[in-house]
Amino acid sequence: MRLSTVRLHDGYRTTTAARQDGDEFVLLPYTDVGTLLASGADWRERAARNGDRIPQDSVSLAPIVPHPNKIVCLGLNYATHIKEMGRPTPAHPTLFAKYDGSLIGARDDVHMPPVSDDLDWEAELGVVIGLAGRHLSREEALEHVAGYTVANDVTVRDWQHRTREFLAGKTFEGTTPVGPVLVTPDELPSGASGLAIECAVDGQTMQKSNTADLLFDVADVIAYVSTIITLLPGDLILTGTPGGVGAGRDPKVFLRPGQELVTTIEGIGELRNTVVKDHR
Amino acid sequence: MRLSTVRLHDGYRTTTAARQDGDEFVLLPYTDVGTLLASGADWRERAARNGDRIPQDSVSLAPIVPHPNKIVCLGLNYATHIKEMGRPTPAHPTLFAKYDGSLIGARDDVHMPPVSDDLDWEAELGVVIGLAGRHLSREEALEHVAGYTVANDVTVRDWQHRTREFLAGKTFEGTTPVGPVLVTPDELPSGASGLAIECAVDGQTMQKSNTADLLFDVADVIAYVSTIITLLPGDLILTGTPGGVGAGRDPKVFLRPGQELVTTIEGIGELRNTVVKDHR
Repeated sequence: MRLSTVRLHDGYRTTTAARQDGDEFVLLPYTDVGTLLASGADWRERAARNGDRIPQDSVSLAPIVPHPNKIVCLGLNYATHIKEMGRPTPAHPTLFAKYDGSLIGARDDVHMPPVSDDLDWEAELGVVIGLAGRHLSREEALEHVAGYTVANDVTVRDWQHRTREFLAGKTFEGTTPVGPVLVTPDELPSGASGLAIECAVDGQTMQKSNTADLLFDVADVIAYVSTIITLLPGDLILTGTPGGVGAGRDPKVFLRPGQELVTTIEGIGELRNTVVKDHR
Repeated sequence: MRLSTVRLHDGYRTTTAARQDGDEFVLLPYTDVGTLLASGADWRERAARNGDRIPQDSVSLAPIVPHPNKIVCLGLNYATHIKEMGRPTPAHPTLFAKYDGSLIGARDDVHMPPVSDDLDWEAELGVVIGLAGRHLSREEALEHVAGYTVANDVTVRDWQHRTREFLAGKTFEGTTPVGPVLVTPDELPSGASGLAIECAVDGQTMQKSNTADLLFDVADVIAYVSTIITLLPGDLILTGTPGGVGAGRDPKVFLRPGQELVTTIEGIGELRNTVVKDHR
């Protein structure tokens, strides 16, 4: 099953959860995929129901989960990225957060803030939680996944490194595309492992890796986070980025206004976002 | 005005916003102080209305804002704490996040997780946002404050330092008391500056400072965060802790199960929380 959160152009800027069916969306009676997932453990049955159908190109795409209770991000989770950032291989997952105001849809503009020109790309596999859980084992972890999506943890690199903590550079408003679709686990390899992941800027491939190269895989990460806090339906986990970011290059390369950022994961889909500079 | 979020013992574990009036609470028709603040810029008028009255001791206290859109925390924001942690004076605020599952009420137990015995105290001034805003100047910032509260950013110290990022040690479930009350700015000095702040463990004073010693004050912090992302009503900002934490002592001292943690800010109120060890 492939689910999206779509924006209805009904004059109210409302969103609704929708199921992809060919070139149509079947509208579901939930404001977004997050509220669908929070509607109960049998959400899959409700997501499979019939509803009004609209052509896919008649709506725009909102973030898959516009208001997750938690956005949990992984740093330093591909060997190639750890090396380019000059860090030792970590013994534990490096966790940081984002706020939901940073999220944008799969075709929305990425906002370069007035205070920085150092906007950098980070293609990532996104995991959406479907079932609450705490103290989960690796064996239990994947049963709590609603599905997988594509994200780009676009980073304001100079603000990330202003202090010891990444947060400031990771949660600028309107920087993090997530979508276009949530793909349920039955349509993908276990743990979404073994999928090609790629990021291109104006057609030039910048990152090219495979989700099999995650240092801490999806089950590891879910088990680890659930040691700390209860995972809830709709929670979004971004699993970290492979090598090839702009800050890891010599000389460094950053995104420029007008450039198109394309982020792809095999079997899931593609984000296509244009960089715009905010002047205020 | 002094507002709380209280738990009604009505068999449904519901919460409601309430205004303190003498030794009574006046119940307000909002599920918590956060939804009251989100009800519109004229929330103060609605908060001042009459309603059913109940004795204060007939309810328990929930976190002031149980589900903020954002919890923004400051590290390294008092000179005495920067020194004891062996860090240089930062040029910019050090920001990190918590998730709302870490929040507890002013009299609730603090949960020491099964995986650590290194639970440490951090008394902090809490700020709750009342009016949305982005790109705020220092001059505009304080107009966006709904009020001030007391928090203790209780930290799982070994998990905080497992990786470069603080988050893991800062967001364990049920560790962060916030309350007992939100005090509106008209009852306090500008920016809640100049208030004595203190933390005691089993009656022994561990931290004793003054909010006038904040390196980045409330207006600085609000302006800075609003450069990054839109602040929303109900957002909670924890402004950092003064010197005297357990990890800064020689030898280090951590909380033990059964100990009582008392956190006080002059003119606001007191948190009183007992440490309990979770075994699962």
